[in-house]
Amino acid sequence: MKVTVLGAGYMGSAVTFPLSQNKIEVNLWGTWLDDEIIDFCEKSEHPKLQKELNPNINFFRSRELEKALHEADAIFIGVSSEGFLPVYRKLLKCIKGSIPIFTLTKGLIEEAGDIFTISSIAEKIYNKNIGNDFIWTSIGGPVKAVELAYFVPTFSIYASKNKKAKQISNNFNTEYYNIRQSDDVLGVELCSAFKNVYSVSLGICDGLYKNYKEGQYHNFSSILFNQGVKEISEIVKNFGGKVSTAFNLAGIGDLYVTSQSGRNRRFGELVGRGVKADEAYHGMLLEGDIAEGYRTLNLGHKFVKQQSLLKKTPLLNSLYNIMYNFYDPERELLNLLKIIK
Amino acid sequence: MKVTVLGAGYMGSAVTFPLSQNKIEVNLWGTWLDDEIIDFCEKSEHPKLQKELNPNINFFRSRELEKALHEADAIFIGVSSEGFLPVYRKLLKCIKGSIPIFTLTKGLIEEAGDIFTISSIAEKIYNKNIGNDFIWTSIGGPVKAVELAYFVPTFSIYASKNKKAKQISNNFNTEYYNIRQSDDVLGVELCSAFKNVYSVSLGICDGLYKNYKEGQYHNFSSILFNQGVKEISEIVKNFGGKVSTAFNLAGIGDLYVTSQSGRNRRFGELVGRGVKADEAYHGMLLEGDIAEGYRTLNLGHKFVKQQSLLKKTPLLNSLYNIMYNFYDPERELLNLLKIIK
Repeated sequence: MKVTVLGAGYMGSAVTFPLSQNKIEVNLWGTWLDDEIIDFCEKSEHPKLQKELNPNINFFRSRELEKALHEADAIFIGVSSEGFLPVYRKLLKCIKGSIPIFTLTKGLIEEAGDIFTISSIAEKIYNKNIGNDFIWTSIGGPVKAVELAYFVPTFSIYASKNKKAKQISNNFNTEYYNIRQSDDVLGVELCSAFKNVYSVSLGICDGLYKNYKEGQYHNFSSILFNQGVKEISEIVKNFGGKVSTAFNLAGIGDLYVTSQSGRNRRFGELVGRGVKADEAYHGMLLEGDIAEGYRTLNLGHKFVKQQSLLKKTPLLNSLYNIMYNFYDPERELLNLLKIIK
Repeated sequence: MKVTVLGAGYMGSAVTFPLSQNKIEVNLWGTWLDDEIIDFCEKSEHPKLQKELNPNINFFRSRELEKALHEADAIFIGVSSEGFLPVYRKLLKCIKGSIPIFTLTKGLIEEAGDIFTISSIAEKIYNKNIGNDFIWTSIGGPVKAVELAYFVPTFSIYASKNKKAKQISNNFNTEYYNIRQSDDVLGVELCSAFKNVYSVSLGICDGLYKNYKEGQYHNFSSILFNQGVKEISEIVKNFGGKVSTAFNLAGIGDLYVTSQSGRNRRFGELVGRGVKADEAYHGMLLEGDIAEGYRTLNLGHKFVKQQSLLKKTPLLNSLYNIMYNFYDPERELLNLLKIIK
């Protein structure tokens, strides 16, 4: 079996470990932003994961997409949400159809003023360009890429409506990488997108209080965590996903892992310490780190607003006020406490 | 208005802050284990909270219970679950009835081989000794006592079936202490008891991995956190509480705060590092710190087993095996991953 992974950042590269351990032939293709990463990987270790990838992996640079996809039995997409559409459109020019696509990309996509989940825009474009044999899996659940690369026991949620995709994904399990299947593609996608947004609130709480309260502000952060779970469940329910998806690994679990460490949390910490959100975001970007929650907040806020759901998502609204209207983070979060039940 | 607080440990003492700020006259009574604490409080600061209590508080030593209760309009019980019955029985000898009782005690109680929630044993004893005018509130939600004492914004859940109790508790709100009412006494009690048990699992994970993985094991700990929430919701549902209680502040919120820091987590860390659970528990006890989760695990395991519910609580079962049958913590938790969905 041969799998092509698109995107050599954190997640695309990390998933090559369970794939390689299953004796799957892996082609790792880097986008036009990843050529340097591929250089490093060929010589020594992956610069972000700080670990050598499996020596049997075939590396491909951005210009070599067609070659990278040659005879692939399945494709993983591991690029950022911002990179998704350009990479996906290039991909569709190189494939014929009926090939299972697994995506690790999390977030929402705006096109022509409308906002889409990744699977929905992907299916739309696929049907227009290839046909009606779209075989899709959205991957969610509590997975930090670095930890996956270091074989920390992990649960990953593979959401698909397609039998063939489910069968294939059974080949990716390892001793430490435990795949759990779900039918709720929309629910898993919404959880994955919005947990990046809500985890920022835990970071903000850290930024506000960590330095002078020595970790003694969890009465407050627990309210934000709990509210995040509640709002994710409301969003999932409203858009037609399953509430039980939010109250399980894809929701609670993933919000927990994302709240404990990582880029979105770090971004929130900067905001809590008084850095303006756009400056914090672009500062991190210069170091090659994308805080997905920032961009997803903007799209997610519109997405939720279109459905008149904002009254059920007051924390989302507060985060939007803090990050896009530059409200004072502490005052805004304290005001929030008067509203939520 | 006058309130008598029974127990001068962490939680009993911490709740005096919002009470005092509401100009309520507070009598703080220390149990026979608290006489030394009362000495300290009179002279300077509370030795556990490391903060002076409000100067208007009246302090009472263990022998002065009757005096402490004189003309009280409401009673708070803030002792440990182990201390509950002895204190409660003494209390009932000193009061006449129709007095609202608010309890901060969390856990389960064993009497004559049967296991009870605190409200149920309290009502049974009350009805037998006083009459049928039992006015009860169980307090839950994500509240670390130390943080409450330091005015960290806090949500507290007051669960009662009694109108008068609800009216009175509206007097305890402050700017930082936000009381939310619930009718689900049983659900809140079960959440409060079992979150102490499940938070130990997060501590074990820390103990196993913190020193050599530098915080990079949250893929694993998020599975335990998520499973804890799921099992708490199963327990609540099975015994007749509301699932929505578990998926809100009393469940998710309280498990989160208890998992981030505190005695149960610290206890779990010791177990994860290889200390036998009984030794870890008694070692902490010598320093005056009770890890409630240890004892509640024992009672909770019997409680759940009686209802043949153990197949739905595999993490509870693993924790029992680790702490009461001395199974290897890492092996037991890794085995758990093969079972849970």
